[in-house]
Amino acid sequence: PNNRPTICTADEQNCIAITSRIHWDVGGYDYRPNTAGTSPQKLDSGENLRRARIGVIGKFFGDWNYALIYDFGGSSDGFGGTAAGSLPGGGTSGVENAYLSYTGFKPFGGKMAIEGGIMDLPWTLDESTSSNDILFMERASAGIIAQNVAAGDFRSAAGTRWWNDQLWLGGYVTGPTTGQIHSASSVTPPGSSEQYGAVVRVAGNPISGNNYSVHIGADAEWLIQPPRNLVTQAQTLTLSDRPELRIDPTTLISTGAIANVSGAQVYGVEAAATYGPLIAQGEYYWFNVDRTANTGLPPFGASSLKFDGGYAQVGYVLTGENHAYNPATASYGGIKPHDPFSLASGGWGAWEIAGRVSQMNLNDQIGQAVGIAGGRQTVYTAALNWYVNNNVRFMLNYLHGDVAKQASATSTADVGSKFDAVALRTQVAF
Amino acid sequence: PNNRPTICTADEQNCIAITSRIHWDVGGYDYRPNTAGTSPQKLDSGENLRRARIGVIGKFFGDWNYALIYDFGGSSDGFGGTAAGSLPGGGTSGVENAYLSYTGFKPFGGKMAIEGGIMDLPWTLDESTSSNDILFMERASAGIIAQNVAAGDFRSAAGTRWWNDQLWLGGYVTGPTTGQIHSASSVTPPGSSEQYGAVVRVAGNPISGNNYSVHIGADAEWLIQPPRNLVTQAQTLTLSDRPELRIDPTTLISTGAIANVSGAQVYGVEAAATYGPLIAQGEYYWFNVDRTANTGLPPFGASSLKFDGGYAQVGYVLTGENHAYNPATASYGGIKPHDPFSLASGGWGAWEIAGRVSQMNLNDQIGQAVGIAGGRQTVYTAALNWYVNNNVRFMLNYLHGDVAKQASATSTADVGSKFDAVALRTQVAF
Amino acid sequence: PNNRPTICTADEQNCIAITSRIHWDVGGYDYRPNTAGTSPQKLDSGENLRRARIGVIGKFFGDWNYALIYDFGGSSDGFGGTAAGSLPGGGTSGVENAYLSYTGFKPFGGKMAIEGGIMDLPWTLDESTSSNDILFMERASAGIIAQNVAAGDFRSAAGTRWWNDQLWLGGYVTGPTTGQIHSASSVTPPGSSEQYGAVVRVAGNPISGNNYSVHIGADAEWLIQPPRNLVTQAQTLTLSDRPELRIDPTTLISTGAIANVSGAQVYGVEAAATYGPLIAQGEYYWFNVDRTANTGLPPFGASSLKFDGGYAQVGYVLTGENHAYNPATASYGGIKPHDPFSLASGGWGAWEIAGRVSQMNLNDQIGQAVGIAGGRQTVYTAALNWYVNNNVRFMLNYLHGDVAKQASATSTADVGSKFDAVALRTQVAF
Repeated sequence: PNNRPTICTADEQNCIAITSRIHWDVGGYDYRPNTAGTSPQKLDSGENLRRARIGVIGKFFGDWNYALIYDFGGSSDGFGGTAAGSLPGGGTSGVENAYLSYTGFKPFGGKMAIEGGIMDLPWTLDESTSSNDILFMERASAGIIAQNVAAGDFRSAAGTRWWNDQLWLGGYVTGPTTGQIHSASSVTPPGSSEQYGAVVRVAGNPISGNNYSVHIGADAEWLIQPPRNLVTQAQTLTLSDRPELRIDPTTLISTGAIANVSGAQVYGVEAAATYGPLIAQGEYYWFNVDRTANTGLPPFGASSLKFDGGYAQVGYVLTGENHAYNPATASYGGIKPHDPFSLASGGWGAWEIAGRVSQMNLNDQIGQAVGIAGGRQTVYTAALNWYVNNNVRFMLNYLHGDVAKQASATSTADVGSKFDAVALRTQVAF
Repeated sequence: PNNRPTICTADEQNCIAITSRIHWDVGGYDYRPNTAGTSPQKLDSGENLRRARIGVIGKFFGDWNYALIYDFGGSSDGFGGTAAGSLPGGGTSGVENAYLSYTGFKPFGGKMAIEGGIMDLPWTLDESTSSNDILFMERASAGIIAQNVAAGDFRSAAGTRWWNDQLWLGGYVTGPTTGQIHSASSVTPPGSSEQYGAVVRVAGNPISGNNYSVHIGADAEWLIQPPRNLVTQAQTLTLSDRPELRIDPTTLISTGAIANVSGAQVYGVEAAATYGPLIAQGEYYWFNVDRTANTGLPPFGASSLKFDGGYAQVGYVLTGENHAYNPATASYGGIKPHDPFSLASGGWGAWEIAGRVSQMNLNDQIGQAVGIAGGRQTVYTAALNWYVNNNVRFMLNYLHGDVAKQASATSTADVGSKFDAVALRTQVAF
Repeated sequence: PNNRPTICTADEQNCIAITSRIHWDVGGYDYRPNTAGTSPQKLDSGENLRRARIGVIGKFFGDWNYALIYDFGGSSDGFGGTAAGSLPGGGTSGVENAYLSYTGFKPFGGKMAIEGGIMDLPWTLDESTSSNDILFMERASAGIIAQNVAAGDFRSAAGTRWWNDQLWLGGYVTGPTTGQIHSASSVTPPGSSEQYGAVVRVAGNPISGNNYSVHIGADAEWLIQPPRNLVTQAQTLTLSDRPELRIDPTTLISTGAIANVSGAQVYGVEAAATYGPLIAQGEYYWFNVDRTANTGLPPFGASSLKFDGGYAQVGYVLTGENHAYNPATASYGGIKPHDPFSLASGGWGAWEIAGRVSQMNLNDQIGQAVGIAGGRQTVYTAALNWYVNNNVRFMLNYLHGDVAKQASATSTADVGSKFDAVALRTQVAF
């Protein structure tokens, strides 16, 4: 598909293909901190190689599927994390996929995959949609923050999914992400135990016809054992995200490291529908963070924290193409232009407009010493997407964002900010 | 072979192939330090992306062979080393192969390769066996420690090997590994001169028939010039290994940095035999470390250190397949299942059981101030290997280990440990 | 070309190819600092994996070209930079190419590419020549220093080039290199704004015949906005290079961080000619660095700095082949041997000898407190190149260098050095 080069044995039972994608972003911010107490005071305009992947995908003996994909890009074009002993990039470069998936077992009139390794988990509707096919340059913050608890990128996991044309069921046990320190005796940086958690998702496509479809789903995620810092014994969890654009990788809303975390749960709902070239989609996530770990560290007896957020978006393909439904991931695919752009043939590709409103609230128990004032971010995004052909896309995004944030749970000093931003993504994928 | 995708010119004189492997490990330790003085006090259970390689292999004008293979995995899924200015992973990610090999010269009724670059050196029988084909998840400690002196992974080397069906001879000059600092004026981390050494191996297959074979060999390795720290003038050598499982990359036995090292030599013997589906294999290595470098640093006049270790292992393929001998590397290959696993055809793949006992003694001159109390590690491993098809293998290992170690050469305080561990490897390779 | 494996759709409008190169260097220095005040006092002999690239190149719908190429090699085989939070390697590993180029627009009787992403910019004649085809192991220092101001490797850029058989015109806006910190609020290491600049090049091939050609060109480069350190507000620029061999990545000439830089300009001329197997080539670059940035930091009122340097080289292919001209980059290509080396056919490949003299002067305003005593480097290089076949080349270089340098602009203490060096490159490319 999409001109992906593939070599198979004569019986088509064994195939190896090469896959790659480049997402290169250029843009600028007009960022306005509300006060001198706001952090950051500045965002960095310029460029970023958001994704730069090379990978190999294989099928063996018909039923065994494999992928090994590395991402050389990242929020700062770079590698690793920001701790001592690591490189810039905010943890956004690394082994994207390294898994084995078995699809030979086909029970209950459907298809089934049993799989393990380093995987992109099809958890949340937005994440189940390929980054090559999403309507906006970045997914909405509520979903990103939800995934990162126990399901985000570069995640070790093992589990199964079953689907037919109407229903999709999946469940996975998840572990740490690649690049984590696995040495329990490391001191710089401190070693930690490995986290584990689980996710399940149920989604369906109950109504569909020639020209329309409806998608609904529900998501649940459990952080069962947070990683424990083996030097300080701390168990923490941080919820945060960038402002739906990553040319500067700085986050505007963040809970900071929530102390003494014993576990967390995230529950969500997803819905979407298409009618010809029109697509509408929304998700909402509720977070609960328990703080009763037996670490001997404060806070003691603090009640659970609750956060929530979601988004609603709509897109319209001006040239009439539509987003097709993909039952294997329970999500919508991208646009294949009827008339790819060509000066010779006169084709102009496909053009799409889209809008989104997104909110994430990381404030809870404000006014109490054990409260969290992570901020409430609201972002409005307008998008123009040009699908040149099946492999090339340009995306133009305009964002207006508002972060309402106070200095701490017990200080009402305003440390919020507002911003406008414009950015262009150049995308190549196969 | 093994469904490796290869593109050749029409005359078959120029070919490029893609190669890849994933080894993903999941497991847990029951680790029991003998006393509170033992280090480490804990090992980290969980998962590790042990190997994640993508590479390109080529043949040009018939006689010139090339490989460039990168390993994105590692003992902590990560990059680089643990020193400041590097990333987690313990030096186990990096350029695995980047070499040119010429095979057009064919003297004395055999085949010959003259080669240089970054190479896996076929030194020791265990190392000459591909990591896709070894019977256990990790090679035995004695061989790993022997290789790391001047022949281990990511090694720069130049040399030659000659072989026919009965005999294999090889010799290489070796240098530093990839990722070493090459700047003599670097201060953080300190620059060092580049080490050089040499290895030779002689191996043969004197007896072989339809259904049986015998392999014998001898190995020698010289660390001729250890790297010299150009800030402190120190010349050190550290011998250590993980406990034959790397989910936690911590080493249990280690000499620490042996001071004032002027050179080191390792000598070993190897033997193996097959009889139908049965394979037996063993190696033993003797180490000698000289401490007479003119660094102006202590110890002065210390005598040479002597260590030794080895292993014996046996495997039996329940389904009847056998490990074939590969004359080009003088080692045994993997199992190709007669009936690959398939629900459709009813095949169950190949099943193998194996056991190994391994010991490495890093104690010498105990009781003297210049002695080394690196510890004596004994590990018993039982394995069950399922060869699903020619590309997919699952390995289940149970280990029981005992590390006898005292606090220092002059303190008999017990800092040893015992452990049991269970681990599962998911392997994909082509 | 050159046995590069390529898979196309049946209509040849969509193609994906794999590309790779290994440059592995081994060599030694006889380095002689003039005094004990010289830095460095030592250079490190040994080996270095100079380039180790794997990449994918694609064409989509006829007119859209893409490349994603990663370099795993580098001046210390490693990754990243030398600052805290980065890895050894001096910034010479990274995403080499990640761009999209459109070639469907063909105005004025020529060809045209409109392109953006991470690119090798065809700026200077030496840089426009592939590293697989350059006559010496390293390009001359004057060109390297010129490119690094705003056009060197791993560069983000967007622009256009137009060419026909006689003329080449190109202009690009350039940004930071990959791996830069993009977070304005980063403190360790300090965040910085992103630099931007521009380059233009005009080159032509006014005289050409069956057996001869003449190339002339002019180059200009502007650093319009240097990166601003957002912690200290400093805007600096460093001009430096290694001594035309990178086994030890240490630089011998360097301006250090020139303070308060508001901008810089580089202007150059290039000329070359071939007559049968003979090739002659030279370039000269003039640098101007303005120091009037409004950083509030010294120096205040310092006048602009002026540096200059260039090289002249000549090569002769003993076996009669010639370097063909490539109009798309306005530079000369490599040698394709008439009789590739083969013991079977008796071919000996192509053999070439070459010599170069190169000088770079980084001294200006000597005797003034605001002057720069970066040193004046003169290097003579003799080369013997063996082109084994279209994919394999060996290069043997002998260098004699002399660095005249004083301790500072106001101290005439001699901190210069002299060196001789011999090095061998093993090169594989397709």
